[in-house]
Amino acid sequence: MHVVDLIRKKRDGGALTDAEIAYLVAGAATNSIPEYQLAAWLMAVVWRGLSPEELHSLTSHMRDSGRVLRFPSLPGVKVDKHSTGGVGDKTSFLVAPIAAAAGLCVPMISGRALGHTGGTLDKLESIPGYRTHLQEEEMLAVLNACGLTIVGQTEWLVPADRTLYSLRDRSGTVESPYLICASIMSKKLAAGLDALVLDVKTGSGAFLKQEAEAIHLAELMVATGNRAGTRTAALITNMSQPLGRMAGNAAEIVESVEVLRNQRHPLTEDLRRLSLELAGWMLYLGGKVRSPDEGIQLAEELLLGGLPLKKFRCMIAAQGGDLGWFESPQWLHRPAHRQPITSSSAGFLASVDCHQVGWAVQRSGAGRTAAGEAVSAHAGVESHKKVGDPVTAGDTIFTVYVEDEARLPSVVATLNQCFTVSAAPPAPEPLVYRVVS
Amino acid sequence: MHVVDLIRKKRDGGALTDAEIAYLVAGAATNSIPEYQLAAWLMAVVWRGLSPEELHSLTSHMRDSGRVLRFPSLPGVKVDKHSTGGVGDKTSFLVAPIAAAAGLCVPMISGRALGHTGGTLDKLESIPGYRTHLQEEEMLAVLNACGLTIVGQTEWLVPADRTLYSLRDRSGTVESPYLICASIMSKKLAAGLDALVLDVKTGSGAFLKQEAEAIHLAELMVATGNRAGTRTAALITNMSQPLGRMAGNAAEIVESVEVLRNQRHPLTEDLRRLSLELAGWMLYLGGKVRSPDEGIQLAEELLLGGLPLKKFRCMIAAQGGDLGWFESPQWLHRPAHRQPITSSSAGFLASVDCHQVGWAVQRSGAGRTAAGEAVSAHAGVESHKKVGDPVTAGDTIFTVYVEDEARLPSVVATLNQCFTVSAAPPAPEPLVYRVVS
Repeated sequence: MHVVDLIRKKRDGGALTDAEIAYLVAGAATNSIPEYQLAAWLMAVVWRGLSPEELHSLTSHMRDSGRVLRFPSLPGVKVDKHSTGGVGDKTSFLVAPIAAAAGLCVPMISGRALGHTGGTLDKLESIPGYRTHLQEEEMLAVLNACGLTIVGQTEWLVPADRTLYSLRDRSGTVESPYLICASIMSKKLAAGLDALVLDVKTGSGAFLKQEAEAIHLAELMVATGNRAGTRTAALITNMSQPLGRMAGNAAEIVESVEVLRNQRHPLTEDLRRLSLELAGWMLYLGGKVRSPDEGIQLAEELLLGGLPLKKFRCMIAAQGGDLGWFESPQWLHRPAHRQPITSSSAGFLASVDCHQVGWAVQRSGAGRTAAGEAVSAHAGVESHKKVGDPVTAGDTIFTVYVEDEARLPSVVATLNQCFTVSAAPPAPEPLVYRVVS
Repeated sequence: MHVVDLIRKKRDGGALTDAEIAYLVAGAATNSIPEYQLAAWLMAVVWRGLSPEELHSLTSHMRDSGRVLRFPSLPGVKVDKHSTGGVGDKTSFLVAPIAAAAGLCVPMISGRALGHTGGTLDKLESIPGYRTHLQEEEMLAVLNACGLTIVGQTEWLVPADRTLYSLRDRSGTVESPYLICASIMSKKLAAGLDALVLDVKTGSGAFLKQEAEAIHLAELMVATGNRAGTRTAALITNMSQPLGRMAGNAAEIVESVEVLRNQRHPLTEDLRRLSLELAGWMLYLGGKVRSPDEGIQLAEELLLGGLPLKKFRCMIAAQGGDLGWFESPQWLHRPAHRQPITSSSAGFLASVDCHQVGWAVQRSGAGRTAAGEAVSAHAGVESHKKVGDPVTAGDTIFTVYVEDEARLPSVVATLNQCFTVSAAPPAPEPLVYRVVS
């Protein structure tokens, strides 16, 4: 098999066979195909897309390029949730404990802050002692004890994706729904899931700004997951403003614990609602209820009953995390400096540039500019208004939290440009646009 | 400047600035941009094409990536002819001497056999002693003495093309008219030409099978040449059967000398006619006549006068070539083995698969399968019929010449499949489809 022939075939709009895609994936996993050939093929895929058969082949062979978790000794149905990335998105800390409380098993492999979006692992690591890198047998022990584990990707998982993901970043071939689908789904399927709920975000704070793009990606991922034998559904959700109240690291853990404790607050209602919808779909696809609506109802009952909070504590303890702060969560989030961002005009909060809020969070110190950089546990941005809320002149719209005072001016300058106030309230937008299943 | 941003810009259909293209070309020439990024950009160019400004920038910066010949001491107008590659195409050995006979100066930088097409340098090297690699001052001396020189590309010429050409071959990005144009024109313009005539071939024996593709490439090259200050025109010509009688190396030199000697033969009339048309355009663009038609007329007068033959001998001698064979040219072409390919049916030669004839020539030993391989001076294929000629059962259609008898079976098998005979004569096709100027 000649790689150049495979590149030319895709370049000219043809579809590669399963054996041809297997050859390319093996070459990526073992670094035996030169990067210039993989890059040319990736650009041809950006151009021509992939047929459903090609996407299935690519995802399956990427999944199988490394170890695939099976956990045959686990009693529960294995379910996970994956989000395409947002600002203030902390639903994982709610849906995984709720699903575990329902008797499902959630082996969640998460990522770090990337660009303007936050990282689940970075948030968890703001808990002193919490270990995000577990061996397979440690994961199994946590799952058996608590029903959920949230860990980082290890090197034995989908090595082909490591090569291709890094190359896409360096060769301008990130933005292909087919390549995004194969990257996400190969990693999720390598966790040996029975069911998967995808949170595909759209709007100013999402990677996919247009709803049509989000729906296309969702359709690809749902088809790919179902074809691989994992019951998969996707919710297309609104990321035009930060989710909940806090965006950062420790601050998001604190907020999540408040929701798990049923301490309700108008600014966290969107987070609570979305988490219940995602968890409801997890319960439905995991076979615990007969419909998504029943799932949402059961999720809320479980949350009100308090078991999800216990599950979350169980996981933190099992992964080495400190629990001493649990009775006074504000101890976990101790920023050295804070500064309010106020509105000079009155009316209604008309819009938020959620992408720029995400970059403000990143620049506050909560994110990173290069892989491997340390992040601040205490930095972040708090939202005091939701789109549509009334605003009086002088009202605080955001509060910036930093450890390093020198970071304040740039974050403040960004946030001052990040919102608009109008005389009339904007038309309300749904939290979930639609479900692809 | 970030290369990934430039790749993304082209990927999304944008046009790069002159400075951005200069950066990419410099990176290619100095190997300071990784091949995977250049390959991704090349594939994006295959996809999106280049604007006229981008093509001008790319060609100009490639040209200027190495030395550009100026020859300020040369008295004549500098003119050249370039062909996109064919089978039996030996017009260079006719048009360069005719143009030199008219007082023009022809610094022709040629290539080697590639795939199914022959190479001017390989043909000339069948002349004992002929040196195709000259230093700049040697080229100048030959030009001053004879008015023409035909040499190989040297390493100081267009180094950016060496990187990009090799990478295109390995990354499936050869087939882009924009990249083909930039590659050809950067090398031609680096010879410091005042005028250039392009022979863009189409038909079964050409790289561009479709006339529309040939016209598009011709338009790009003509626009690029004129914009760079070199008067440029292109003839779209018929390559649906081998040009002239012989395809090989020494055999093509012998045939060329016959034409230069005005030894006319029905099977070489297409070669003679095309050479006069190309030479006529060289004389016109070189300012020797007032119209292409006058140029063709003057070219024929010069050919009949015998001066082009003297110019060709002058060049061979000046570049170290033996002239002893000139009085008995058959000495130059001495194949060890020959075998006729005959027709089993009668009628008219309806078509020739010129692409496959080209591969038969290559497999006879006249071409190569990898760069750097030696070629046979004496191998090749002779055509005994032109499309439209009457055929009697048992007539010889081709003769195969080889030095290595083991090569015969595969060449014979190919050629037996390479022609069709029909009851009625096929509709005649023009030799020159059109001129782009």
